Amino acid sequence: MNQIHFDTDYMEGAHPDVMQRLVESNLEQTTGYGTDLYTQQAKGLIMETCCLDPERAEVHFLVGGTQTNSTVIDGLLHHHEGVMAAETGHINVHESGAIEASGHKVLTLPSHQGKVLAHEVERYVNDFYRDETYEHMVAPGLLYISQPTEYGTLYTFSELQELSDVCHSHDIPLYIDGARLAYALASPRNDVTLPQLATLADAFYIGGTKCGLLFGEAVVVPRGKELLPHFFPLVKQHGALLAKGRLLGLQFGALFADGLYFRLGAHAVALALKIKAAFADNGYTVYIDSYTNQQFFRLPNALIDRLSSLATFELWGPRGEEQSVVRFVTSWATREADVDALIQAVRNDKEEGDNPK
Amino acid sequence: MNQIHFDTDYMEGAHPDVMQRLVESNLEQTTGYGTDLYTQQAKGLIMETCCLDPERAEVHFLVGGTQTNSTVIDGLLHHHEGVMAAETGHINVHESGAIEASGHKVLTLPSHQGKVLAHEVERYVNDFYRDETYEHMVAPGLLYISQPTEYGTLYTFSELQELSDVCHSHDIPLYIDGARLAYALASPRNDVTLPQLATLADAFYIGGTKCGLLFGEAVVVPRGKELLPHFFPLVKQHGALLAKGRLLGLQFGALFADGLYFRLGAHAVALALKIKAAFADNGYTVYIDSYTNQQFFRLPNALIDRLSSLATFELWGPRGEEQSVVRFVTSWATREADVDALIQAVRNDKEEGDNPK
Amino acid sequence: MNQIHFDTDYMEGAHPDVMQRLVESNLEQTTGYGTDLYTQQAKGLIMETCCLDPERAEVHFLVGGTQTNSTVIDGLLHHHEGVMAAETGHINVHESGAIEASGHKVLTLPSHQGKVLAHEVERYVNDFYRDETYEHMVAPGLLYISQPTEYGTLYTFSELQELSDVCHSHDIPLYIDGARLAYALASPRNDVTLPQLATLADAFYIGGTKCGLLFGEAVVVPRGKELLPHFFPLVKQHGALLAKGRLLGLQFGALFADGLYFRLGAHAVALALKIKAAFADNGYTVYIDSYTNQQFFRLPNALIDRLSSLATFELWGPRGEEQSVVRFVTSWATREADVDALIQAVRNDKEEGDNPK
Amino acid sequence: MNQIHFDTDYMEGAHPDVMQRLVESNLEQTTGYGTDLYTQQAKGLIMETCCLDPERAEVHFLVGGTQTNSTVIDGLLHHHEGVMAAETGHINVHESGAIEASGHKVLTLPSHQGKVLAHEVERYVNDFYRDETYEHMVAPGLLYISQPTEYGTLYTFSELQELSDVCHSHDIPLYIDGARLAYALASPRNDVTLPQLATLADAFYIGGTKCGLLFGEAVVVPRGKELLPHFFPLVKQHGALLAKGRLLGLQFGALFADGLYFRLGAHAVALALKIKAAFADNGYTVYIDSYTNQQFFRLPNALIDRLSSLATFELWGPRGEEQSVVRFVTSWATREADVDALIQAVRNDKEEGDNPK
Repeated sequence: MNQIHFDTDYMEGAHPDVMQRLVESNLEQTTGYGTDLYTQQAKGLIMETCCLDPERAEVHFLVGGTQTNSTVIDGLLHHHEGVMAAETGHINVHESGAIEASGHKVLTLPSHQGKVLAHEVERYVNDFYRDETYEHMVAPGLLYISQPTEYGTLYTFSELQELSDVCHSHDIPLYIDGARLAYALASPRNDVTLPQLATLADAFYIGGTKCGLLFGEAVVVPRGKELLPHFFPLVKQHGALLAKGRLLGLQFGALFADGLYFRLGAHAVALALKIKAAFADNGYTVYIDSYTNQQFFRLPNALIDRLSSLATFELWGPRGEEQSVVRFVTSWATREADVDALIQAVRNDKEEGDNPK
Repeated sequence: MNQIHFDTDYMEGAHPDVMQRLVESNLEQTTGYGTDLYTQQAKGLIMETCCLDPERAEVHFLVGGTQTNSTVIDGLLHHHEGVMAAETGHINVHESGAIEASGHKVLTLPSHQGKVLAHEVERYVNDFYRDETYEHMVAPGLLYISQPTEYGTLYTFSELQELSDVCHSHDIPLYIDGARLAYALASPRNDVTLPQLATLADAFYIGGTKCGLLFGEAVVVPRGKELLPHFFPLVKQHGALLAKGRLLGLQFGALFADGLYFRLGAHAVALALKIKAAFADNGYTVYIDSYTNQQFFRLPNALIDRLSSLATFELWGPRGEEQSVVRFVTSWATREADVDALIQAVRNDKEEGDNPK
Repeated sequence: MNQIHFDTDYMEGAHPDVMQRLVESNLEQTTGYGTDLYTQQAKGLIMETCCLDPERAEVHFLVGGTQTNSTVIDGLLHHHEGVMAAETGHINVHESGAIEASGHKVLTLPSHQGKVLAHEVERYVNDFYRDETYEHMVAPGLLYISQPTEYGTLYTFSELQELSDVCHSHDIPLYIDGARLAYALASPRNDVTLPQLATLADAFYIGGTKCGLLFGEAVVVPRGKELLPHFFPLVKQHGALLAKGRLLGLQFGALFADGLYFRLGAHAVALALKIKAAFADNGYTVYIDSYTNQQFFRLPNALIDRLSSLATFELWGPRGEEQSVVRFVTSWATREADVDALIQAVRNDKEEGDNPK
Repeated sequence: MNQIHFDTDYMEGAHPDVMQRLVESNLEQTTGYGTDLYTQQAKGLIMETCCLDPERAEVHFLVGGTQTNSTVIDGLLHHHEGVMAAETGHINVHESGAIEASGHKVLTLPSHQGKVLAHEVERYVNDFYRDETYEHMVAPGLLYISQPTEYGTLYTFSELQELSDVCHSHDIPLYIDGARLAYALASPRNDVTLPQLATLADAFYIGGTKCGLLFGEAVVVPRGKELLPHFFPLVKQHGALLAKGRLLGLQFGALFADGLYFRLGAHAVALALKIKAAFADNGYTVYIDSYTNQQFFRLPNALIDRLSSLATFELWGPRGEEQSVVRFVTSWATREADVDALIQAVRNDKEEGDNPK
C-alpha cells in the first residue's frame, strides 16, 4: 500500500472539472495576459459571487500566494509605510523576504493562535503616532491578516468588523490573505460570507492553488478602480503576470460556475474534523482548536513514529522529548478512504497500547 | 469560417502530449516547490540534452519570461552593476520596468535588427572603464541578448563566440534569453546547438511558454553551483516560484523526453518560411530577413486591410501612409491549413490586383 | 606659483559669510533634523524669494545633489512610472544608478546640447499611450531637466513654459535639477526668475553645494503639502537626512539673507564669460555657446598640454588626434587673478605661436 | 538664565579644533568625493589608531548614521539574507525603514537592555538552518549590534569575542554601529580597544556626528578590500557620498590627530556619571545601570516637572501615573557648569521635599 499524505493542501493537481476545461479549450487561440473572454467571464462570476459593484471593483488573477501578497501589499503601501501582521503571519515568516525585497517592513503584532486583536492593532497605531519621533519610524500603512490563519483558526464576523473599524478609523486598508479561504468559508464555525468579506476588507484574495486549481489566486478589490490603479504593470514587475492568462480565467470559471469552490472546501473540512474527532476520541491532545482543514495535535513521539509508516504529516516546530506537535492537512482532493485508514491506525494503536500482548 | 491568428506564439495551451502528462498525473500527491521526482527527472533530461556537468550545473524551472529575466539578472548583478542589452531588448522595452524595480539599470547598446555587435560591447566596456568618473556611473556587469532576437534574427555560432569572448575577457557573464529558443534551434540558418550554447553562455533559458507548454522556462546555468548560489529564495522573492512545482517538471519532461521540443520548433519555422516565401513570391517586401518563426513584411495598407478579414497579425510600429510593417508569427500549434489559407488569400489578392475585373 | 583650478565648482569650502555663521552659532544647542529655528527662518526666506504660498508650499533642505534627485524622483513617481530625461541628464549618467536603485527607469529623450525639446516630450508621451502594449512598458511619470544643463546651456522662459504645458496637459510633473541654478539665474541670457520657476515647475532645487555652501540643496515644492506628503521619512530612507539639520538652515539663511546667492552666481558667470571671450578672441573654437559658469572649447592638444602646467581643467570626452574638447568651470570662489593668469597664458601662447622665435 | 539641554548628543556644532581646520582650509581648492589629501591623511590616522593592515583594510567616510547603516548592511548582505539585530536596535526602530527600503529584513533577537546574547544568536542561526522550510525564510546573513547600545549599555570584550566567534563559525559577518563609540571607549567599564574591535568585527563605524564633528562617520572594514569591494557606487546610491569629501577628511583628521576623540569621549562620560551619582545619592532609581553618556532614571513626575523649567531631557517611553523614565544625555560639548546646575537643582528639590517650609 502506498503512503498517504496529509502534509499540505497543494500536493495534487486540479479538480477534474478544472482539468477538463483546460483540455477542452487547449487548442483554442486567445489573446494573452488576461484579455481573453474566459478571464472576463470568470471575473464576472467572482464579482457576482462577492456582490461587488462593477463600477468600482476589480478582480485580478495572479499565479501564486507569495507574489499576490507582495504585489498587493506593495500596491497599497506608500514608501514610508509598512504592513502590520501577526508575527506568525505568512508574509513575516515564509515568503523569503519578498515584502522587504519590495521595500517594506513587516510590523509585527502579537499572534493569538495566528490571529491579531483589534485593540492591539489600535494600540499599535496610537502608540506610533503618539511617539514624538514617529517620522523616524515605519508608519503602519496596512493591516494584513489571513483567513483562516496559518494555525487554522478563524476570525468571526464581529472580530473582522472590529479590525475593519479600527483600520478605517485610521485610514488604513485591511487586506486578507485567503490562500485557504475555501476552508474558512466551509467551516461549521464560520459566520462570514464572501460578500461580507468584500464589505469589511479593502482587498483580499480567493486562493485557488490550495483549493482545486493547478495554480491561481483571485485578488478582489471592492474599490479597486480608485484604490489600486495601474495594477497591471505592478503585477508584471512582481513576476505575477501569466502570458496565457486564460489559464487562470478558465480555472476560476470552473471553480465558481456552480459552487464547486464551496463544495471542495466543505469536503476538506469535513474530513479534517473527522480526523480531529478521532484523535480526541482516542484521548490525544488537540493542540489548536481548529475547525478548518488544518488540524494540530500534541502526540506521543512513539505514536508519531508508528503512524509515519502509514502516512506523512508535518512536525510543527521541533520534536519534543516525549511528545511533539504535528499538523494534518486535508484538501479538496483528500480521499475519505485515506482518512479512514489513518483513523483506523490511530484506533488500533490505542487498543494495542491498552491491551498489550 | 473563424478568423485565424498569427499575432503571437502564446495563443494556445500546451501540446497534447504535455496535457496528457498533466492529466495522467493529476491526482498523484507530490511535495511542492520542485522537490518532486518529475522535476528531478526533467532537470536530468535537460542536463543531458545540454551536455552539462552535473557537478557544477544547475537547471531551474520558472513560470514566465519576465520573471525569469528579472530573477536571473538580479542574481548575476552586483549592486553597482547594470545589464547591457540592445535598445530593442525585451528587458529594456517590454517588461514594465521589472529590471529597474529590482534596482538595476539597463545599459543600452545599438540594435542591429535586434542584435548587438561584439566590438560595440567591447567599446562600451572599455569606454566605461577609461572614463575617470566611472565609479559615478553604472558598471556593465552582464550582457543580455536574446536568441532569436525580438526581430526574429539569429546570432551565428561565431558571433556568439565573439560576444562570449568579449564578455569573459572582462569577467562579465553572458546571459541569453531563449523565450523562443526552439525557433532558433530549428532554423535552417542556425549553427548553434544547445550544448554549444551551454559552453558560450553563463546562463540561458529554454522557453516553454512560447513552445509547447502552458507555461514554464528552464533556466540553464552551466556553472550554477558557484555562479548563482541561493537561487531558490531569489526565485521566491521575484514571484517566480510555483507551489505545485511538478507542473513544470512534468511539462519539461514531456518536452525533452523524445525530442518533442525540437520537432515543435521545426514545425513552426517551416510554416513561417512558407509564409515568407509566399509574400516574397508575390512581390512584397520582406522587412527583416528572418529565418525563425517571426516574419516581418512591409505591405500596402490596402492588402493589410483585406487580409485582416481572414487573419489577425500585428502592426509593427505605427501605420504608415501607404504601407506598414506587419509581423506574422507561427508557433508549435499553427495549422498548415491556416497558413495555406493565408497564402491563398495573398495570391488571390495579387491576381485580382493584376487582373482587375 | 601654485596651480590654479577650473575643474569644477565644488573645489572650495563655503563663502566666508556662511562659514562665519557656522562658527558663531557653533556651540549653541538646538534640536535636530531641521526642527530648529535657523532652519525655519531659512525656509521662510526661500519661500519669500520664490513668492511661494506658505499654505501650500514646502521647502526641504537636503545634503547633496544625487540624494536630492533620487529622493524627489522616488517621491513623485508611482511604481509603474519612470522619469524622462535627456540622455545626457545627470540622473542618467552620473548618479551610480541611484534612480534605478530606488526602482525606477530613466526614460531617455534626445539631448540637444543638454536640453530636451517640448515637442519631443509630447511625442514620447503620445507614442507611449498610443502603443497597445503600453502597460508592458514603463510609463512616463515625470520630466527631469536641469537648469542650466550639464552642458552649460539654458532653457528660456518660453521653452520652460512649453515643457511645463506639455507635462501638465498629461498630468506629468516637471522637476528641475538646479545644482547650478545660481549660474543660470545670473546669466546675461537668462530670462527666468525664481518665482517664475516656482510657477512652471512642480519641484526644483536650489543648489548650495556648487554655489557658496559646504553642502546643501534646497528643494522647493510649490504645492508640496499635497504633492509630496510624508517627505521626511523618504528623505531618511534615501540617506539624505542630516542629524544637525541646522547646518543647512544656517547656510541657506546666509545665502538668502541679502542676495548673496545671486551675487555669487554673477561673479562666477562674469569670470566664465571673460574666459570665453579670451579663447574666442584668440581664435579658438567655442564648442558649446554657453552663458553660464561652464565653458567648453575645442583646443589644439598642444595648447592643452602647455596650459596644463598652469591650470587644471577637464577633458570633455576622449582626447582627439590633434584637438580635444575641454571644460573650464568657474565658481563663486574663483579669483579674478587666476582667470587673468589663464587668459594671459592663452594670449602669450598665441603670440609665441604667431611670432615663433 | 537659558535652559540647559540634555536631550541628546548632537545639539551642538563641532569641536572648536575641528571648526578651525574647516575655516583654515576653507578656500583651498581640492578634488571632490574623498580623493583629496586631507581624506587620505585622516584614513591613515584611523588605520594606525585601529592597527589595521593597509593591504587589506579600508576606511570610508560617510555623512550620517542611518545612511552608514543602510549602505554597509546592503553591501554585506546577499539578496536572500537579512540582518539580525536586537529588537531595540536602531536599524529596527529608528531608521524610517531604510534597511527594508534597500530590500532586506531586520531579523529581531531579544534585547537585554539593548544587548543581544551570543547563545541566542547561536540558537537563532541553528534553528533557522534546522527548519526544513528555511529556503522560504530570510537567512541570517549579518549580525548588527551597537556599542554602546541604544540603552547606554556596553558589551565586554569577552561578550564581543563570543558574538564574533558565533558569527564566524557560521560565516556571518559582525557589524558594530559605533554612533556613540567614543562614549563606550571612554567608559570606566569598557575593556575593548579600537584595535581589538577591528579584530572582532568585520565592519564597524566610528561615529563623528555624536562626538565632536559637524557630521561624519568613519566606516572601518579590516578586510574591506575583499569583503566590501565596489563600495563607492554603493555609497552614492545610498545618498551617502559627499561632494566636498575633504570636509570629512578634515574633521576626522582633527579628531584623530592627537587623541581628541578619546578626550571628548572621556569628558562626556565623566559628566554623565556625575549626574548618575547625583540622582542615586538623592535616592532616585537608576533605571539602567549605564556607564556611558546616556543615563536613565525613574523619577517622580513632580520632580520631572520641576526640573523641566531648568533643563530639557527626554521622556523614555510613555509618562507613567506617578513616575516616569527619563534619559539625560551628555556630550563632548556639555558644560560642567550646566551639569552642576542640574545637580544642585536635584539636591535643592530633595532638601525642600525633606524640609518643606
